Amino acid sequence: MTRRTARDLRSDSRSAVLRAFFSLRTATRQELSQHTGLSVATVSTLVKEFLTAGVVHVEAVVSSGVGRPLEQLRLDPSRGYIVGVDVAETYVETTVFDLSLDPRGTVSVPLDEHQNSPQYVVDGIRLAVHGVLALAGVSTSSVVGVGVSLPGQVQPDLGVSVFAPNWAWHDVRIKELLTAELGMHVHVDNPLKAIAVAELWFGAGREHRDLAIVNLGTGVGSGLVINGELVRGVSNNAGEWGHTLLALDGRLCRCGRQGCVEAYVGVNGMKATLSEIQPDHPALLQQEQRRFVDAVYEGVVAGDPVFVELVDETARYLAASLGDLVNMINPEHVVLTGWTVARLGDWLIPLVRAKIPDAALRSSVAVLTVSASSLASSTVALGMSTLTLEHFLAAVGLPSRTGPAPAQQG
Amino acid sequence: MTRRTARDLRSDSRSAVLRAFFSLRTATRQELSQHTGLSVATVSTLVKEFLTAGVVHVEAVVSSGVGRPLEQLRLDPSRGYIVGVDVAETYVETTVFDLSLDPRGTVSVPLDEHQNSPQYVVDGIRLAVHGVLALAGVSTSSVVGVGVSLPGQVQPDLGVSVFAPNWAWHDVRIKELLTAELGMHVHVDNPLKAIAVAELWFGAGREHRDLAIVNLGTGVGSGLVINGELVRGVSNNAGEWGHTLLALDGRLCRCGRQGCVEAYVGVNGMKATLSEIQPDHPALLQQEQRRFVDAVYEGVVAGDPVFVELVDETARYLAASLGDLVNMINPEHVVLTGWTVARLGDWLIPLVRAKIPDAALRSSVAVLTVSASSLASSTVALGMSTLTLEHFLAAVGLPSRTGPAPAQQG
Repeated sequence: MTRRTARDLRSDSRSAVLRAFFSLRTATRQELSQHTGLSVATVSTLVKEFLTAGVVHVEAVVSSGVGRPLEQLRLDPSRGYIVGVDVAETYVETTVFDLSLDPRGTVSVPLDEHQNSPQYVVDGIRLAVHGVLALAGVSTSSVVGVGVSLPGQVQPDLGVSVFAPNWAWHDVRIKELLTAELGMHVHVDNPLKAIAVAELWFGAGREHRDLAIVNLGTGVGSGLVINGELVRGVSNNAGEWGHTLLALDGRLCRCGRQGCVEAYVGVNGMKATLSEIQPDHPALLQQEQRRFVDAVYEGVVAGDPVFVELVDETARYLAASLGDLVNMINPEHVVLTGWTVARLGDWLIPLVRAKIPDAALRSSVAVLTVSASSLASSTVALGMSTLTLEHFLAAVGLPSRTGPAPAQQG
Repeated sequence: MTRRTARDLRSDSRSAVLRAFFSLRTATRQELSQHTGLSVATVSTLVKEFLTAGVVHVEAVVSSGVGRPLEQLRLDPSRGYIVGVDVAETYVETTVFDLSLDPRGTVSVPLDEHQNSPQYVVDGIRLAVHGVLALAGVSTSSVVGVGVSLPGQVQPDLGVSVFAPNWAWHDVRIKELLTAELGMHVHVDNPLKAIAVAELWFGAGREHRDLAIVNLGTGVGSGLVINGELVRGVSNNAGEWGHTLLALDGRLCRCGRQGCVEAYVGVNGMKATLSEIQPDHPALLQQEQRRFVDAVYEGVVAGDPVFVELVDETARYLAASLGDLVNMINPEHVVLTGWTVARLGDWLIPLVRAKIPDAALRSSVAVLTVSASSLASSTVALGMSTLTLEHFLAAVGLPSRTGPAPAQQG
């Protein structure tokens, strides 16, 4: 398929209007037109769809004394709710959002990382979803969709977990299982796509059209935004920067390949670096990854030269691998996020800024900024809810293609 | 700027209709609508602009006996000409195209690679442009634009050669110089962007919306196409895959960084690999790069084990670095092009196909195809002419920047 269809253009316009509502909160059709660059006629057509679906309501009618009074519109938070679900190796965290994507409550349920059956994970998700709905006092029937992020490679269109290395899942039809279990509309995706969408709509994407969102934790990865749109690739795997080479024939990565970025800047990569600096360092005995990062943080704060060297070497690896990302996509901005960044960002980011000019083309570095994410936590749940809202609205706006509009769903 | 404007959408639609003309050659408004997915109303508006500008003409009027007779339209080759200019280190090659982008003649002028003043290069371009116009019997006044590809980093909007390492140019206002010298409308860009656009419009882009065009020669680089659109990045440097890391602290690259892909799979990289296999090999004395590649070709054809090992090791480096590209953007197709591929592709490509599954995510490799370009030579000139034609039409279609938006969208 080589053509950009009218449907794509229409879908772009719909997303643009929706994002404008998130930016402006309350707006007239004229203001939406100014904000999006779309014609008032196009905006009016889309607003009519949104009004019909009950997603938008008229908050006030204002008169300037000249011409027709103008309707001030906003997203209608009471139209329904969306549940964002972040499934990780050791927990399921759910957040319920109203249709303005304001959070209404969060619940976390632990998962035993040694249990890997789909049914076990589905049970955990069910508990966490029903728990958060009870907490927020939201009935199942008012949920327009549940957005579930799953680790590994996910194909949203097929609703399949293609590969989840932590559970050794291959081609699990997870959307089907969850839909049957929950009795609600379910949308699935990968956490990096969710984080990138959250950043695109509510974070750095408000300022930048071309950005990379880089997540550092146990695993490392990126989400790419080009021309204001999330890049998925043909099988939703774009952005797997964590599994690009830092060093041919280098350290063994848990993906099976040697020399991946993750084997140097993921938490186990940092442990490997520490073992090269001092093979008998006591912190290497720490099995819990977050505690290991805490120990690094405390060591750097205390000025311990071994930890200072570890952070410096990690920053060198990070700058080199971000340099590759910058040379490949030439973004305007790189956002760093994830729990390693939350803990060590104040040390890592200035070092990366200092080292990146040696790692990328000068005229690409000249236009680049690097910063920590300004979003609070739960960005996975927020991103999944955003994706689910977009899906809901796409179905609302295009009744002919996808059958009945999801006014009936839930 | 975070918004996708009506102007962007309109420009996408214009390109879609133009590409449809290149695919269909002759088409009615209804056929253009079917091919592009745009409404007949949108197509009619754009066709009207093209007719007014004289770019399209009515070739025939056909009647089916039912309803209104239909006009068969096509691009009007006699409306004007475009000159595509490929400026390399040792030559300027110019091809003149009519507005259907059919070539009408090619001229090549040698450049002394030790001369690096902008005026020297501009003089060479002027000679080659006037030469090819004389050859094709085209008058200066019928040229609607000259598209000039320059090595290194180029900013088309500013008309500036930001950095050309071979000439040690920094921020040369080359478009201004050329416009004054030629007295014609000039558009400048980088050869990888030109090759990618040629492939997008006339090669693999007809079949694939997500592709990477990988060029192998003295230098190596890529052009990226995502969702049917060329990725430029914020300073037109996207796709600099040749300067991503294969090996941290590895071989010194001519860009100054250590371990770049180019230092392994560029022609000098292949020489370095040969010197590791056999430090005193006579082929290492060959200074002329194309002759070196010829020697490799002849050696492999003859079954010489040293050259067989060289090609195998080069394919290993190439597969590893293409694996990174695949993990980053998850394309549907990788096109290999450039003179190394023209010579060694029959050996390199099957080896790369065999090795790439070890270098990239399984679910990304599963959807990937790799092939040599199907386009004939002069793709740089063809791509530059395509970009120049797009610019010409954008100017035709948008007499005022803030003109009326396409209310007919969708």
